[in-house]
Amino acid sequence: MGKVYLVGAGPGDPELLTMKALRILERADVVLSDSLVSAEVMQLVSPRTTIVDVGKRAGLKLLTQDEINSLLVSYAAKHDVVVRLKGGDPLLFGRASEEIEALQKANVAFEIVPGITAAFGAAAAAGFSLTDRRVASQVLFTTFSRGDDVKSLGWREVTADTTLAIYMPGTDYAEVAARLLDAGLSAEIPCALISQATRTEQQILWSNIGALSEEQRLPAPALLIVGRVARQNVREFGEKVSAVRFNKSEEVDAVLQSWLKN
Amino acid sequence: MGKVYLVGAGPGDPELLTMKALRILERADVVLSDSLVSAEVMQLVSPRTTIVDVGKRAGLKLLTQDEINSLLVSYAAKHDVVVRLKGGDPLLFGRASEEIEALQKANVAFEIVPGITAAFGAAAAAGFSLTDRRVASQVLFTTFSRGDDVKSLGWREVTADTTLAIYMPGTDYAEVAARLLDAGLSAEIPCALISQATRTEQQILWSNIGALSEEQRLPAPALLIVGRVARQNVREFGEKVSAVRFNKSEEVDAVLQSWLKN
Repeated sequence: MGKVYLVGAGPGDPELLTMKALRILERADVVLSDSLVSAEVMQLVSPRTTIVDVGKRAGLKLLTQDEINSLLVSYAAKHDVVVRLKGGDPLLFGRASEEIEALQKANVAFEIVPGITAAFGAAAAAGFSLTDRRVASQVLFTTFSRGDDVKSLGWREVTADTTLAIYMPGTDYAEVAARLLDAGLSAEIPCALISQATRTEQQILWSNIGALSEEQRLPAPALLIVGRVARQNVREFGEKVSAVRFNKSEEVDAVLQSWLKN
Repeated sequence: MGKVYLVGAGPGDPELLTMKALRILERADVVLSDSLVSAEVMQLVSPRTTIVDVGKRAGLKLLTQDEINSLLVSYAAKHDVVVRLKGGDPLLFGRASEEIEALQKANVAFEIVPGITAAFGAAAAAGFSLTDRRVASQVLFTTFSRGDDVKSLGWREVTADTTLAIYMPGTDYAEVAARLLDAGLSAEIPCALISQATRTEQQILWSNIGALSEEQRLPAPALLIVGRVARQNVREFGEKVSAVRFNKSEEVDAVLQSWLKN
């Protein structure tokens, strides 16, 4: 009986894989990947490894979650190292809990290897912090589910200093904006839409809730970050609320020397 | 003029550094680190690199954020590769926005390299997903600020299917539990306290909001995950709500063969 590794592939840039993920990928007998794993990451998988694309969208039939669960158990019975490779981190919006339960039920050993989730890749690409003690004390990782079942969206209750990181916002920006306005957020609140963050095709759109519906559509995978942190021109903003006291290196050296003595 | 890299050091296990972070650390002339970066990660820094511990807590004096900002600018004027190394991801609860503004103001080039934030390290260690389409649709990354200024905590408004990842919960578990109960959460809601996640000293405490105040105190850095996902014995729970349909490999193979043909 082998072991199943639930591994985060990160946002796309293969250099954003962890060293642990790379080590396990290099030893993998089988890799079950999905459509959110970038092609560049998949190129790191050894030619001797069996690759099963369980997110194959071009085919006529997609595997159900139950079928993926069963495949994991089945491969673990025949191979030493089975990798379930997921875009971003395996424990956020990835249905890992169902796979973990199936592995536990079948007494298959498993291990979870974290990955960089899209929100951190996107924020790093855009160059702003998800929190900022002056304007944003917390961040909500959420997603935009359509249809009647909107109970899961607690956006209405989000406080003004919460940053929203909205996964899979889709391209109906008017609907997203309407829901944000309906949640009581002001039209002036800035937002940034980051498409294919950390990949070579990366694009960033700077907007605000009021203007979002008119913006150019960007391709998936995309992430929408909403909140006062999401400003391109943070320099002027920063100067209004925070002063940098030292800018001469002699002063800095003096501070450092004094501090090092203590 | 050099470049400043704001680099995430991850939760502690040095194998959870990204390949990009490792590459930059190996080239660093100066590394400014803080107390949340694990000793094992610091051992990866080359002996030729100047290390400045700006989070030195044993000393009589800590550097202010303004002083750290100025040091970054000053070092960038003298060295090619300056690394500001932060525990977890640099863009969450790390005051990176102030450092970014200081670098922009001084026209210093900078780049952000994401890291695995503690919540993902902790959840991976504990073995449960932060979201689960059956019980948790979103996750709030928040922190526990004490004192009168509690406006930033939107916990009262969090919906029942939101997982809370509470950074730096401290050791006054009674106060944390009281605030969660005051927020309208039920005493039966499970929680997991993960201390020093992914490090060799890692400990996990399984509890619920009602019992939390009586639990053994665990050392920092710690993270408290609150919500219906935070259950140690997920197998029984899972069987109540989700059935795994296939468990014989012949059946699985048949499914796979049928799917591969399409």
